[in-house]
Amino acid sequence: MRQIDVCLTPELLHLYPVEGKVVVVVDILRATSCMTAGIANGVSKIIPVATLEECTKLKNKGCVAAAERDGKKAEGFDIGNSPYSYLKPELVGKTVAVTTTNGTYAITKCDKAEALVAGSFLNRKAIAQFLRDQENDVLIVCAGWKGKVNLEDTLFAGSLVELLKDEFGIEHDAALASLSLFRQAKGNLKGFLSNCSHVRRLKHLDIDKDIEFCLSMDKFDVVPILKDGSIVKKEPEYALNGNGRKA
Amino acid sequence: MRQIDVCLTPELLHLYPVEGKVVVVVDILRATSCMTAGIANGVSKIIPVATLEECTKLKNKGCVAAAERDGKKAEGFDIGNSPYSYLKPELVGKTVAVTTTNGTYAITKCDKAEALVAGSFLNRKAIAQFLRDQENDVLIVCAGWKGKVNLEDTLFAGSLVELLKDEFGIEHDAALASLSLFRQAKGNLKGFLSNCSHVRRLKHLDIDKDIEFCLSMDKFDVVPILKDGSIVKKEPEYALNGNGRKA
Repeated sequence: MRQIDVCLTPELLHLYPVEGKVVVVVDILRATSCMTAGIANGVSKIIPVATLEECTKLKNKGCVAAAERDGKKAEGFDIGNSPYSYLKPELVGKTVAVTTTNGTYAITKCDKAEALVAGSFLNRKAIAQFLRDQENDVLIVCAGWKGKVNLEDTLFAGSLVELLKDEFGIEHDAALASLSLFRQAKGNLKGFLSNCSHVRRLKHLDIDKDIEFCLSMDKFDVVPILKDGSIVKKEPEYALNGNGRKA
Repeated sequence: MRQIDVCLTPELLHLYPVEGKVVVVVDILRATSCMTAGIANGVSKIIPVATLEECTKLKNKGCVAAAERDGKKAEGFDIGNSPYSYLKPELVGKTVAVTTTNGTYAITKCDKAEALVAGSFLNRKAIAQFLRDQENDVLIVCAGWKGKVNLEDTLFAGSLVELLKDEFGIEHDAALASLSLFRQAKGNLKGFLSNCSHVRRLKHLDIDKDIEFCLSMDKFDVVPILKDGSIVKKEPEYALNGNGRKA
């Protein structure tokens, strides 16, 4: 039986080998929610980079530059980290270079995975279907907050484990804990999270609308997947098997 | 307001400075449950060491040597990691040298704390009272399983947060997640844990009686505290203040 497991923060990745696994990176507030929205909107490519400098370089080469630090848009960049910016019509067909506090770091740390997709509540069912349709073990990697565990990413991990628990084995406690937390929270995700440090931290930034959006379920039937260093839309013919990167 | 926080595994300790804090180390199955039982039984000193070699050295100097690896008693040592071994009358007044897979590692990594105590369900209320009576911020450090998060230590952290939530501020998500999980589990701790990987891993070792014992609440009114590298019984006159190691 294929296995599903959860790595609660990138700081624990050394304990979770990603080779041969399909990794779902999750940064609900807000990097992977933005990627989902952008790819669904028709952005052609999203290039995750670790530093503001790399992001500026790509801006100078004609990319739309999206940069967030500590929850705010970094100065001198085109857009920040609101999913609404990724839904603008002028982004259709464009390449976006993006750097964020947590999400892009998690992506760059998992580049040895068999495949890497960006998960969020917005595309949860699409991600679950993609995972069912391939043959590898699955590791959900929560981006966390500056290395620490956060609730919203953990809840998303639990929601994905719930969808897949009949088809995948659950070996470890982090996955079981995520599942339990999601079951407790799912009736009122926003209420459950209203106590969490990250949501409180973001409150003064006036992104309540963003949070509401990022917690809406199954809005987009799209799987953003890493290909040659960029997040792109998974095309229907793309399929994984156990023997190689692409069937 | 004093703060309480939870570090879910020693692998994340670099994100949680322990200086100036009172640290509660927890390894429910079974290191800190054993320490609680031993100190309550009248063991005079428990010396946590990282390696089997150090443990052997102390055995040769006359200590009772307790060594566990992968859930089993290590060969050539006096006792393993069952709390029942720590309750034997012949241990009263003795010094025990102990090494375990997770718990002793967590203790040795936190030695810069203002004070370090060993917590377990067995002495939960005594630990809570000790924490109320002092002035420092509190960090609960879960020993986990080989670096990964485990459910039973997380649940204990949540149970302590629940007892202290009116007197301490909760800043971060790990503490909130622990609290939520404990609230969900507390009606049937053993049932909740019966699915967890560590309990399943220990099942074939036939330690069901040990697990039952380690999940019993508030059995001993005792606070095992680190003093000069050994865990000893906290004496009533011992008090902490904000300015130094001992008032």
